[in-house]
Amino acid sequence: MHRDYYKRNKYRAAENLLYDSPEEECGVFGVYSTQKIDTFSLVQFGLFALQHRGQEACGFSVLKDGFIHTVKQEGLVLDAFKSVESAEDFQGNAAIGHTRYTTAGDKKRYNYQPLFAKNQYDKTILSIAHNGNLVCIEPIRKKLEQEGINFLATSDTEVMLRLIQKYLDKGIENAIKQTVTNIEGAYSVLALTENKLVAFRDPNGIRPLCIGIVDENTYVLASESCALDGVGAQFFRDVLPGEMIIIDEEGLRSEIIFKKAHQRICSFEYIYFARPDSIIENIEVHKVRMESGKKLYEQSPVDADMVLGVPDSGVPAAIGYSKASGIPFMPVLIKNRYIGRSFIIPTQEMRERIVNLKLNPIHSEIKGKRIVIIDDSIVRGTTSKRLVKILKESGAKEIHFRSASPPIIAPCFLGIDTPDKRYLISSNKTREELREYLKVNSLDFLSLESLYEILGSKNHCFGCFTGKYPVNKKNYKVDISAL
Amino acid sequence: MHRDYYKRNKYRAAENLLYDSPEEECGVFGVYSTQKIDTFSLVQFGLFALQHRGQEACGFSVLKDGFIHTVKQEGLVLDAFKSVESAEDFQGNAAIGHTRYTTAGDKKRYNYQPLFAKNQYDKTILSIAHNGNLVCIEPIRKKLEQEGINFLATSDTEVMLRLIQKYLDKGIENAIKQTVTNIEGAYSVLALTENKLVAFRDPNGIRPLCIGIVDENTYVLASESCALDGVGAQFFRDVLPGEMIIIDEEGLRSEIIFKKAHQRICSFEYIYFARPDSIIENIEVHKVRMESGKKLYEQSPVDADMVLGVPDSGVPAAIGYSKASGIPFMPVLIKNRYIGRSFIIPTQEMRERIVNLKLNPIHSEIKGKRIVIIDDSIVRGTTSKRLVKILKESGAKEIHFRSASPPIIAPCFLGIDTPDKRYLISSNKTREELREYLKVNSLDFLSLESLYEILGSKNHCFGCFTGKYPVNKKNYKVDISAL
Amino acid sequence: MHRDYYKRNKYRAAENLLYDSPEEECGVFGVYSTQKIDTFSLVQFGLFALQHRGQEACGFSVLKDGFIHTVKQEGLVLDAFKSVESAEDFQGNAAIGHTRYTTAGDKKRYNYQPLFAKNQYDKTILSIAHNGNLVCIEPIRKKLEQEGINFLATSDTEVMLRLIQKYLDKGIENAIKQTVTNIEGAYSVLALTENKLVAFRDPNGIRPLCIGIVDENTYVLASESCALDGVGAQFFRDVLPGEMIIIDEEGLRSEIIFKKAHQRICSFEYIYFARPDSIIENIEVHKVRMESGKKLYEQSPVDADMVLGVPDSGVPAAIGYSKASGIPFMPVLIKNRYIGRSFIIPTQEMRERIVNLKLNPIHSEIKGKRIVIIDDSIVRGTTSKRLVKILKESGAKEIHFRSASPPIIAPCFLGIDTPDKRYLISSNKTREELREYLKVNSLDFLSLESLYEILGSKNHCFGCFTGKYPVNKKNYKVDISAL
Amino acid sequence: MHRDYYKRNKYRAAENLLYDSPEEECGVFGVYSTQKIDTFSLVQFGLFALQHRGQEACGFSVLKDGFIHTVKQEGLVLDAFKSVESAEDFQGNAAIGHTRYTTAGDKKRYNYQPLFAKNQYDKTILSIAHNGNLVCIEPIRKKLEQEGINFLATSDTEVMLRLIQKYLDKGIENAIKQTVTNIEGAYSVLALTENKLVAFRDPNGIRPLCIGIVDENTYVLASESCALDGVGAQFFRDVLPGEMIIIDEEGLRSEIIFKKAHQRICSFEYIYFARPDSIIENIEVHKVRMESGKKLYEQSPVDADMVLGVPDSGVPAAIGYSKASGIPFMPVLIKNRYIGRSFIIPTQEMRERIVNLKLNPIHSEIKGKRIVIIDDSIVRGTTSKRLVKILKESGAKEIHFRSASPPIIAPCFLGIDTPDKRYLISSNKTREELREYLKVNSLDFLSLESLYEILGSKNHCFGCFTGKYPVNKKNYKVDISAL
Repeated sequence: MHRDYYKRNKYRAAENLLYDSPEEECGVFGVYSTQKIDTFSLVQFGLFALQHRGQEACGFSVLKDGFIHTVKQEGLVLDAFKSVESAEDFQGNAAIGHTRYTTAGDKKRYNYQPLFAKNQYDKTILSIAHNGNLVCIEPIRKKLEQEGINFLATSDTEVMLRLIQKYLDKGIENAIKQTVTNIEGAYSVLALTENKLVAFRDPNGIRPLCIGIVDENTYVLASESCALDGVGAQFFRDVLPGEMIIIDEEGLRSEIIFKKAHQRICSFEYIYFARPDSIIENIEVHKVRMESGKKLYEQSPVDADMVLGVPDSGVPAAIGYSKASGIPFMPVLIKNRYIGRSFIIPTQEMRERIVNLKLNPIHSEIKGKRIVIIDDSIVRGTTSKRLVKILKESGAKEIHFRSASPPIIAPCFLGIDTPDKRYLISSNKTREELREYLKVNSLDFLSLESLYEILGSKNHCFGCFTGKYPVNKKNYKVDISAL
Repeated sequence: MHRDYYKRNKYRAAENLLYDSPEEECGVFGVYSTQKIDTFSLVQFGLFALQHRGQEACGFSVLKDGFIHTVKQEGLVLDAFKSVESAEDFQGNAAIGHTRYTTAGDKKRYNYQPLFAKNQYDKTILSIAHNGNLVCIEPIRKKLEQEGINFLATSDTEVMLRLIQKYLDKGIENAIKQTVTNIEGAYSVLALTENKLVAFRDPNGIRPLCIGIVDENTYVLASESCALDGVGAQFFRDVLPGEMIIIDEEGLRSEIIFKKAHQRICSFEYIYFARPDSIIENIEVHKVRMESGKKLYEQSPVDADMVLGVPDSGVPAAIGYSKASGIPFMPVLIKNRYIGRSFIIPTQEMRERIVNLKLNPIHSEIKGKRIVIIDDSIVRGTTSKRLVKILKESGAKEIHFRSASPPIIAPCFLGIDTPDKRYLISSNKTREELREYLKVNSLDFLSLESLYEILGSKNHCFGCFTGKYPVNKKNYKVDISAL
Repeated sequence: MHRDYYKRNKYRAAENLLYDSPEEECGVFGVYSTQKIDTFSLVQFGLFALQHRGQEACGFSVLKDGFIHTVKQEGLVLDAFKSVESAEDFQGNAAIGHTRYTTAGDKKRYNYQPLFAKNQYDKTILSIAHNGNLVCIEPIRKKLEQEGINFLATSDTEVMLRLIQKYLDKGIENAIKQTVTNIEGAYSVLALTENKLVAFRDPNGIRPLCIGIVDENTYVLASESCALDGVGAQFFRDVLPGEMIIIDEEGLRSEIIFKKAHQRICSFEYIYFARPDSIIENIEVHKVRMESGKKLYEQSPVDADMVLGVPDSGVPAAIGYSKASGIPFMPVLIKNRYIGRSFIIPTQEMRERIVNLKLNPIHSEIKGKRIVIIDDSIVRGTTSKRLVKILKESGAKEIHFRSASPPIIAPCFLGIDTPDKRYLISSNKTREELREYLKVNSLDFLSLESLYEILGSKNHCFGCFTGKYPVNKKNYKVDISAL
Repeated sequence: MHRDYYKRNKYRAAENLLYDSPEEECGVFGVYSTQKIDTFSLVQFGLFALQHRGQEACGFSVLKDGFIHTVKQEGLVLDAFKSVESAEDFQGNAAIGHTRYTTAGDKKRYNYQPLFAKNQYDKTILSIAHNGNLVCIEPIRKKLEQEGINFLATSDTEVMLRLIQKYLDKGIENAIKQTVTNIEGAYSVLALTENKLVAFRDPNGIRPLCIGIVDENTYVLASESCALDGVGAQFFRDVLPGEMIIIDEEGLRSEIIFKKAHQRICSFEYIYFARPDSIIENIEVHKVRMESGKKLYEQSPVDADMVLGVPDSGVPAAIGYSKASGIPFMPVLIKNRYIGRSFIIPTQEMRERIVNLKLNPIHSEIKGKRIVIIDDSIVRGTTSKRLVKILKESGAKEIHFRSASPPIIAPCFLGIDTPDKRYLISSNKTREELREYLKVNSLDFLSLESLYEILGSKNHCFGCFTGKYPVNKKNYKVDISAL
């Protein structure tokens, strides 16, 4: 999503040792009605239900009386909507919104989404919200710059925007069809024009996108089905990989824009990103997580006094493990709910002292116990190590660490902010080395085979576990002569 | 805490139907060292660990080179500390801080704490942070106003501040001793002067306060022990009811300022307010909650398919219930973690549509199931009713509702923002009427006897369950002739 | 200049009784060098010397490395330039600037100049600064709106901008030539593109514009020659009516864009607007003013004790009168130099009490004296009446009022903010009626014949004195089919 | 007025070569009525008429319903009053205001006046506005600091404020009487308490202060009588040197607080500072200026073609000279009215080029002429030199320079911001050396004897011309034991 992708990850490596999870990059939500509706509330609560997909910034574009008005703001969804002087100004008949993940790096307002294009009289003619990540965009950007296009932001999303804008005089559908022949990567996109809402997904369908029905006049589109619940809409269906959905005065219609399309949705959506109450491509997220705990027990049974889950995403696996093993689940690892904001620790002494800012165990329950602790994944290993330290200081007798996902050995180029290989501990240590590094009695990861079984097929992207991506990043050449 | 106490509650009754929990009013944290230390970080992370006690505003006063500097800001703890231009300016040798709960009513900056008093040359000579609520303050305020004292805020805390200020020329200890003969209510207070940190608790010890040790030169004081963990301090002991603790160059000393003191700490701290990883007056909070689930099963066993806990405070009881009953605990009630901020819903249609903004169940798991659902308490009943509606819409076959506390029949005057009796549903409906109102198959509350057993004695304030308070509100007369 | 021209004047009639002068609408200044120069300072001090032509707002566009950067701000010239973070950002090789007059009405930021046009990638490609006023612009605006052009401001200047922008792909010179066939009125304009500075004047040359030379590489353009002095430039020549001046890498060249052009510069520039140290179309402004005093004495000699001039523009005429008559000139009418800002008088009582806010006489000098008082003009008559009142209250024995311009009987449509005929006192009262209204012993105006003699010809616009304009406002039809 | 007096002057020496005039430090205005009146407008227009005495900042305190409310703001008087949200909030029955001169140095908000003192409950109990300058305040400040007084500003005025505050419990009159025994210097002060307006002047009466009557219930006090005209008040009388005026419910009364008092008002008030329409201690300011021109001609008659006055303060002398000599006065030196703000000239080249920013001559009138040019004074000589240069470049044949005041050879310690002796050119050059430096044909200063004659006595402070001050700066010892 960011131009300075590697730089930021490197920066994170140094700064963000306290937050060691892969970070999702966005949630999108859109609505189109043939009549005036409460677009303000629909987008607000649709995005609010997707808040877990990004907390850095929120924005939305509303189509009202033929004009597209956009608001973007740093911070949480409800704050962005509260910042609006009059909700009435945003009551139109279509809208798109975007929520963006929070970074420790500098805030780049110009990258906030929706990104929009204006004509030379300052009227917005197109606004887009993108979840995913394009690859190999630099040659396209340079080509476009040579054509005289002045880029205002640094994101891959603007490259997509400028391409669509370039072809827009042929109509939005043709513009999108032409654009997607020029780009590669992961993209689930909502595009709002002066009279249409268009959605499209890359041919691998790497990021999710689904359609809901509010009433006979009104459709919504959302990254996850939990957002349909959030606005009281009925789930209709997922947008297909390589499909374009057009909604306008005529209603909803579909067009397949890639002949060769595959189902290759990101498996990490199920493991970590998506909300457990979402159903994505007919698989229930929470079930995947409960099952992973069960599989973990079956893979390597252990005798212990209690099972702990790292809140929140490790808890369902821990409960699954508990059910499978009969070892009691105990809610004795307390998470500070207000974490997520950055903070300053001016002195080194305090930096060392503060180890349990995010998680605090109930010491008396831990003391002398044999513990199975389950986290959703291990990325850099720093959080896991810190957690083991905390449990040991509380007097745990044995610690059996379980990761509810396979070892992460490769970075993601398709919309998740994982660090460089150098920082992926499973890419650099054998399991035994890692066990020693963490100083635990046993260590296991969910096996790829277990994951295939739980998901019911291999039709997903497992790039971060295998290094093999549905998008052939290396050999990919953008045919910029066609632009 | 607020002068317009009833007005605000009434307001809430109309506006805040989505948030139906009693609201705590504050957390306090203090530090004193004989040497320069990282007061900025200590107060920051101490308050951060107490963030659950209030999210409206945060403030702190630091004693640096003999001057007391105060920062106060609307919003969360980490935001207030980030707002500081230079952390170095707040590196002194003593500090106090306060975090305040969020309200839907208007924001009154002048009530943010710490509250401080200046001399006529604008130098701060005293700063206090108060958790609790004073009763019958109006006659004292009027008396002081007649003496020419100009009140800048509207809180009970300022009355206490002005009394201490009035007597301050006799020294802070004497000033506090004189002040407490004039006030009644719940107060756990930290007071910072130009060379001392003083803490004192009302004679019933209604709000908690404990002492921790960072190193041989440095003491901390906190509302809950989880804040000691938060800054890496060792728990030393609780401040006693009616005790005053003085920390200065000479070290720490204690003085009993009430001959007649009793242990009457608020039982609701254990049920709802305190963090589960805190230990208050030697009772572990999380154990109380787990036990309450067990007791609830023993009180009225039921056959069911799963136990749900209303996140977060209902979960430990649900797990306790599950353990006692063998009915599996299922984490299938998903909480939106970003709730807590107010928001605008401009249209009536949307207000009706939005029922599961805060909690969304996993429909497939609920469908056709017999469910035991446990919440920490029932206040107005609106949240419970909404929850039952959601579960029924997901297809629950039976719903057995359990409250992990006794029926709340009386408001709190001692530091919790519960509504007026009119709005306390258990004060207005029999259990059977309430069961019918909620439309559940069975309903039970933790009995008072169970609660006594769990807490091990009756030495607590059970005012909201019984209407009997350790402070005799009605007959209390302030002897203002003594002022 | 403003769309709501009449509305504003009407407003003024009610509000601005204290400020009764015609108001000029702008000064422009431009610079082009083949090399990098101190464009920041040149435009700053050029505009500063033109500050008398407008105090409402100031703006400037600088061409630096092929990009046009614009700053606009309410207030005075030096304030706008001080608001810039780094002067270095505005050191380029060409620039234009604009200073705008102050109004009592609402501030319309979007009308501040320079006005600029961007391409669809937000890059500025054209910036213009306009002194003057177009007539009959509404049909053109509507035609352009129908073509899909989105107007961002409400000024006539934007109509001109959008026309030039529309034709800009044919080059700036052609775009200007096409534009001027579509517009009528008064315009002295500077246009800055990515590589040129172009200046052009309407075929009557109603507003002034002159060229100066800084060095062999650098030309400047300014509304008045005093701005050439202000930046140390040599006067080169006036831009001719109907002439276009192009300055670029090749140097300066001229093109006559109107076959039929006339010298019809506004005579009021000499009487009131221009700075006395300016020379406009070879006539020295201060000489016109001194001469008008002499002519006034010759027209109707009077015996008196002293001559007063209303500061500042009445003073040269008073000195001319004094020289011609031998009656001593006395500087005993003191002007508050800080007037010019609006202010609030909340009570009616004070509104009546405050008569001499702007001018205060030295009472002892006035008492018992026969006074000739000379103002540059009489517009509404309110200021004159107020002044006479002040002099009478100071004890003047006789008052002989002289206007250094002919009676103003018609509004200006060509760049001066005079009020509607209803408010022009000479349009509504005979000279004798006016003398009685003012309660003076005698009253005279400079005759049109005297003015012709002073200016040396009738080749000027005398519209406000005669109601006859060089632009045939009434019959004018814009041939919008040609657009 | 400023603690860092010399530092600032030194700074000025380097930076402010374009502005070479002594700078006055303040104007004060006050009003008291037994009834509610339009205090907002009275103070606004009173200060507005005193705007020439200071343009840096403006402030005012209004007594309304027993509370003193203060507004202070950088910038001009009308801006400060416009910044007020509701004028109604400042409609009381008494008020004081202050206008402060503009500096090139840093802006110190805390020194803006009125300065006020609060009690420990944040209620303002005293507000003062001071024109003048105290000497030898450091020992007093230190003594007070040792007593525990915390200074918030750096000005001499705060020392006075803190002294009055210290003694205030004995009543404002006694507090002032005690205070003035401890301070020395120039002070014309207005003090507002919760029920009184008190004015007092130092025993030499160095800065002016006069009383006016609005109606039977309402008195005003002002630095100059022009401010009485400005609010439509009648001049009553000057406050006497060493007199205290008390106005309250009882009306106006006087008390002589210095047995030994002298009339020693600053002679520079007449020469430069005061507005020409003011009458100070029965001498008309404009007459002094006209007379000085006459005396200058009599001192050293010269044959010339025209007399020029440096606007504005040199003009009356020039007219006086013209009358005495018969040489015509010509208004051909044009002043840019918008000067006064600081500005940035980023390049050295432009700094050299910009010589006539402030004054521009009408070249054609100057060319070949023998000119007498009169300025009010010569301080550093830089302005004079620049002016001569400009006239020569315009082709003046002879230049005869006249200063309408004697040579300034010593700095002022009593309220005028003149530079250090090193920068006073008359302190460093003989008249002949100065004539050569300025490159003029002749040079003369008004002689001290002429000045005595014009003022009618030697009962004035002539310190800057003689180095002898009514306040014995050197030997003065503050008897701080008496504090």
